[in-house]
Amino acid sequence: MDAATLVIPPPPVTPLRWEGDPLTGALLMLDQTRLPQAVVWLRHTGPDSVIEAIRRLAVRGAPAIGIAGAYALALAARQEAAQTAPVESFVGALEGHAARIAAARPTAVNLPAAVARHMRLVQGRRQSPAATAHALFEAARELERYEREACAAMGRFGAAWLWGRTRFLTHCNAGSLVTSGIGTALAPIYVLKASGQAVHVSADESRPLLQGLRLTAYELTEAGIPHQVLADGAAASLLRSGAIDAVITGADRICANGDVVNKIGTYGLALAAREHGVPFMVVAPLSTLDPHTACGADVPIEQRPEDQRAYLDARALPASLPAYAPAFDATPAALIRCFVSEAGVIEHPDKKRLKVWLRAAARFR
Amino acid sequence: MDAATLVIPPPPVTPLRWEGDPLTGALLMLDQTRLPQAVVWLRHTGPDSVIEAIRRLAVRGAPAIGIAGAYALALAARQEAAQTAPVESFVGALEGHAARIAAARPTAVNLPAAVARHMRLVQGRRQSPAATAHALFEAARELERYEREACAAMGRFGAAWLWGRTRFLTHCNAGSLVTSGIGTALAPIYVLKASGQAVHVSADESRPLLQGLRLTAYELTEAGIPHQVLADGAAASLLRSGAIDAVITGADRICANGDVVNKIGTYGLALAAREHGVPFMVVAPLSTLDPHTACGADVPIEQRPEDQRAYLDARALPASLPAYAPAFDATPAALIRCFVSEAGVIEHPDKKRLKVWLRAAARFR
Repeated sequence: MDAATLVIPPPPVTPLRWEGDPLTGALLMLDQTRLPQAVVWLRHTGPDSVIEAIRRLAVRGAPAIGIAGAYALALAARQEAAQTAPVESFVGALEGHAARIAAARPTAVNLPAAVARHMRLVQGRRQSPAATAHALFEAARELERYEREACAAMGRFGAAWLWGRTRFLTHCNAGSLVTSGIGTALAPIYVLKASGQAVHVSADESRPLLQGLRLTAYELTEAGIPHQVLADGAAASLLRSGAIDAVITGADRICANGDVVNKIGTYGLALAAREHGVPFMVVAPLSTLDPHTACGADVPIEQRPEDQRAYLDARALPASLPAYAPAFDATPAALIRCFVSEAGVIEHPDKKRLKVWLRAAARFR
Repeated sequence: MDAATLVIPPPPVTPLRWEGDPLTGALLMLDQTRLPQAVVWLRHTGPDSVIEAIRRLAVRGAPAIGIAGAYALALAARQEAAQTAPVESFVGALEGHAARIAAARPTAVNLPAAVARHMRLVQGRRQSPAATAHALFEAARELERYEREACAAMGRFGAAWLWGRTRFLTHCNAGSLVTSGIGTALAPIYVLKASGQAVHVSADESRPLLQGLRLTAYELTEAGIPHQVLADGAAASLLRSGAIDAVITGADRICANGDVVNKIGTYGLALAAREHGVPFMVVAPLSTLDPHTACGADVPIEQRPEDQRAYLDARALPASLPAYAPAFDATPAALIRCFVSEAGVIEHPDKKRLKVWLRAAARFR
């Protein structure tokens, strides 16, 4: 199957959207904590509410967080530019905003990287605050466009590699809800379907926050793709039954040696896939690659109060309940059959094979 | 550590208890679907409510279901004996009850086995219905006593094998709540603690029905044992971190080749334990062994409406949501470091090593 002949469908959902012109418009954001029960759009006109939304997972997924952070920086510049202050204090204030935005989530590299990259566009230049705000807005819009095209490319490359396989298992949500396009892990599946192939998706519910049950099932329903959910612990038995042709996940960060940091549960899933000879594909844009992190053990893993609360809610008890609740785990490169990015496919990834991509990823730092 | 010198503590919870004399008494049963929010005792004076309680998982776990079934049979005989009918129609009616009791749950072998065994005590004998009812009551009481002593023996053998290890990971609930004693998987941990060793338990929450979160955490709190819960998908990462000295589970059925049928999620957990060299111990009474099932692939796996509903509840959507929701999975014998039963310990189990236990298990058929 030639990747160029595959069909790219429109995204089933678009979680981030700029409304209006740069000077008076706002960032619209789908509140993913409310899905699927309610479709609620947040309207951001300043950086603080975006930071809060990133923190409480209203927007989630490495590419979408990066885009949201870029728009937050543009909103911060617009807000500061509206004050009548000298340029020096404008830049100082903006740097303060940038630091707060970059620190809103610790695991994904996209967010601090996008903020630092966009700040370099304006630092050391003697331009008016208004011009800076406009440049940051254009940079955010360009990032949004880039990630959309990256999704299409990942969809094409992934679908070409998967062609002929029809039954997929995925973990967490790495679809259009985490990007400005057709997603990462789900992109190849959307492309396969749009190109005429039958597809079926099994979605791990992904405890504790149930992104698979709440978000992937929602998104697949919007896309008209037949699917079923399962408890994370049932994946090994499903793989053993021979009902899955490939496992596909996204990534929050890919380390220099190919280790993949992704939603808690990915590592155990990869072990089970290897046991049953089912290929494990990781789909993520180059911006997810982190040349500065040698391996998975070096990544700080978030321990979030939301995850702790999820256990208490499920038990419906007010008492405290000690929980081991890491948000992510690290999957060794050796368990991964192939990486897909907008640059193509790398099979059996290791440090050497990743070298070209790591160089390409430097443009996102 | 000599198993004989270990201390057996009282069970932290006793989920089944006969109250009163055989003729007028009742079976008290802790409703485990209400735990931990409410401690509700059901009072059974006839077989039908016991069957319903078994079906809706108010009582659960292979040994406890067997005991409940045995008492249900005694209650059925008492109920029929109270009618003024000829002995032949009494036996026929009792056989009808026995068939319904045995069919209340399909996976655990204990329930149909206990019912069939106790029916053989009365079939073909010309004794009065009242004498039959009394014999079945005594048989149920004897089974309850046997399982309690079996728990103590499993606790001793398991604790002796584990001595020196302090950090355990378990799946689902296989504690005092599933037996008439100190449990199966948790029995060695209770014995270690009572014998003066520090212990800490990590409990998989065990989706979809959250037995770990609801029941194991409840039971460990009652027992005063420090513990934490985790999402099933986090177990692989916890094992990788080196924080676990042994994984211990119960079993719903052990096949002739040593394959273990247990709560969904056990298989993936066993794969992760092997990957990290953490011993996987299965603790179950001999009554759980099934010489007539060659291997795990031969066991009918329940697909229960409760499990399906658990997904809908979590998503809080009334719509239908297709789910892959097997209640159990099968773990190959090759992944199990040792079996513990009331007969002792078998390391690296296989068909040959299990032969003596399989012969001993015949007495439960």
